[in-house]
Amino acid sequence: MRLISYRSGDQHGVGVMVDQNRFISLHRLLPDFPASIRGILQHGMGGLRRISEAIKGNEGDLRLDQVHLDPVIPEPHATWALALNFQMHIDETGLTTSPDHPQIFQRMPISIVGHNEPLWCPNPAIAKTFDYEGELAVVIGTPGRHIPVDLALTHVAGYACYNEGSVREFQGHNRQFGLGKNFERSGSFGPWLMTAEEFGDPKTHRLITRLNGVEKQNETLDKMLFSVERVIHYLSSGYMLQPGDVIVMGTPGALKKPPGYVLGPYDSPRNPGRTRMKPGDRCEVEISGLGTLSNPIIADPTEM
Amino acid sequence: MRLISYRSGDQHGVGVMVDQNRFISLHRLLPDFPASIRGILQHGMGGLRRISEAIKGNEGDLRLDQVHLDPVIPEPHATWALALNFQMHIDETGLTTSPDHPQIFQRMPISIVGHNEPLWCPNPAIAKTFDYEGELAVVIGTPGRHIPVDLALTHVAGYACYNEGSVREFQGHNRQFGLGKNFERSGSFGPWLMTAEEFGDPKTHRLITRLNGVEKQNETLDKMLFSVERVIHYLSSGYMLQPGDVIVMGTPGALKKPPGYVLGPYDSPRNPGRTRMKPGDRCEVEISGLGTLSNPIIADPTEM
Repeated sequence: MRLISYRSGDQHGVGVMVDQNRFISLHRLLPDFPASIRGILQHGMGGLRRISEAIKGNEGDLRLDQVHLDPVIPEPHATWALALNFQMHIDETGLTTSPDHPQIFQRMPISIVGHNEPLWCPNPAIAKTFDYEGELAVVIGTPGRHIPVDLALTHVAGYACYNEGSVREFQGHNRQFGLGKNFERSGSFGPWLMTAEEFGDPKTHRLITRLNGVEKQNETLDKMLFSVERVIHYLSSGYMLQPGDVIVMGTPGALKKPPGYVLGPYDSPRNPGRTRMKPGDRCEVEISGLGTLSNPIIADPTEM
Repeated sequence: MRLISYRSGDQHGVGVMVDQNRFISLHRLLPDFPASIRGILQHGMGGLRRISEAIKGNEGDLRLDQVHLDPVIPEPHATWALALNFQMHIDETGLTTSPDHPQIFQRMPISIVGHNEPLWCPNPAIAKTFDYEGELAVVIGTPGRHIPVDLALTHVAGYACYNEGSVREFQGHNRQFGLGKNFERSGSFGPWLMTAEEFGDPKTHRLITRLNGVEKQNETLDKMLFSVERVIHYLSSGYMLQPGDVIVMGTPGALKKPPGYVLGPYDSPRNPGRTRMKPGDRCEVEISGLGTLSNPIIADPTEM
């Protein structure tokens, strides 16, 4: 089952996809249900089962092209993001990371948009290095503390694609990434939440990132240094994971440049994985068996 | 004016203090107002003026000892916290930080409690170095992007005390602080929001942290390397500050040990500012002219 968070005018709602374009408005189907995926998960994972029962025999009443998509969870209690969780990405950055504990930072809601909504490229007077990071997002369903590794996946409601867009100069301003990972509308989360049951084992999937149709990242998710299970176990040693919490699993490295490739103005000679996205570009993050999150890049429209 | 976020049974509300103990329930005074300080600020700073008009001539109908206090803003859109913003703290840690840009990370709501609520000392099997950090908290009132330094303070709704409690081993697990700054109920935020007008210039105030009544930190807030104005300016270069956003301004260093002081079992010989709080302790953060945030420490009650 695939759930979307959408808005139509001022109304926000949850939808259940019936094919690649049509969905059922949950409000029409189950009017007593909360109007957000986080709200539904807060009432227990039984809510997802009730939805999957209720949609049987129903046809979609709305199409994706009639609405705007919000991030899968528009206001999570916390969004954790992993740095340097693929060896290929560690190698290309030249950075080091602990082999014993994941490296984790946070993102805030205003930095994230939904599928097809524009990402904002910072004004060049502020920053010039706006980079994509294609990643797998994990959404927590069942709360839990001190979760053993072998039970960790039972706490997952589902998965989505994530573009953990980053402003590299600001990330490097100081030791903590801070604002560099949190520029307004610099990342995206979608297109939908695919339930864990339908997605299956994350390790069996592949992630591909494309910029203007050109493949930039292409890696299997079994290459993660810290698995979804281990990260859930780690976080739950410190706090009670909350329904709707988001864990973003880190980005793989860049594909090798083809032989004879000449560096362009947006390539970093030092770091082959670093790209400067610019207004007019379109960035896609595809996860096999899940779907594709696609966003156009526009110039940050705010006046300085 | 001083505003509290409180709960009584399952009901959450906003109160306006009339003396050190009594307050007026905002719901009784202005039943059409949102039931959270964040909600009030989202309707514009005019809400604070309406409240200050409405309380005139009213007496408190409730006492602090009849209710529980929540964090001043229980679920902010973002909580930014500064690392190494006082030279004294930089010196005692032996760490380096950029002189040009603030060092910033984030905290999530479940890591914070209100005044007088217990902080949870981690189970020693998980971590042993639970440390206080007394800090000034800034709450944003008026949203803004690209805010010039000289107008930055006009975006502030008010101030509060903050104990940015930290689990040092986890903070040191990897390069980003991550979970080390986000253990469940490891920090506190209160007792109230004092409006900016009443608090005045942050630089003229003093911060004192006490553990079991013994002064541990005592510093004037003019010693911050990055002022409130500069941090607001910096953050607003990347995103539209949101009403209720919290900025925690960093902790000063520890007081020098008196001559002849012998290190106890909870003192770190390497870092004189590091303390291990333990169940049974009480930690207080006082800011002159604002008030005192006080919390008992208890053992994390969750079963492993």
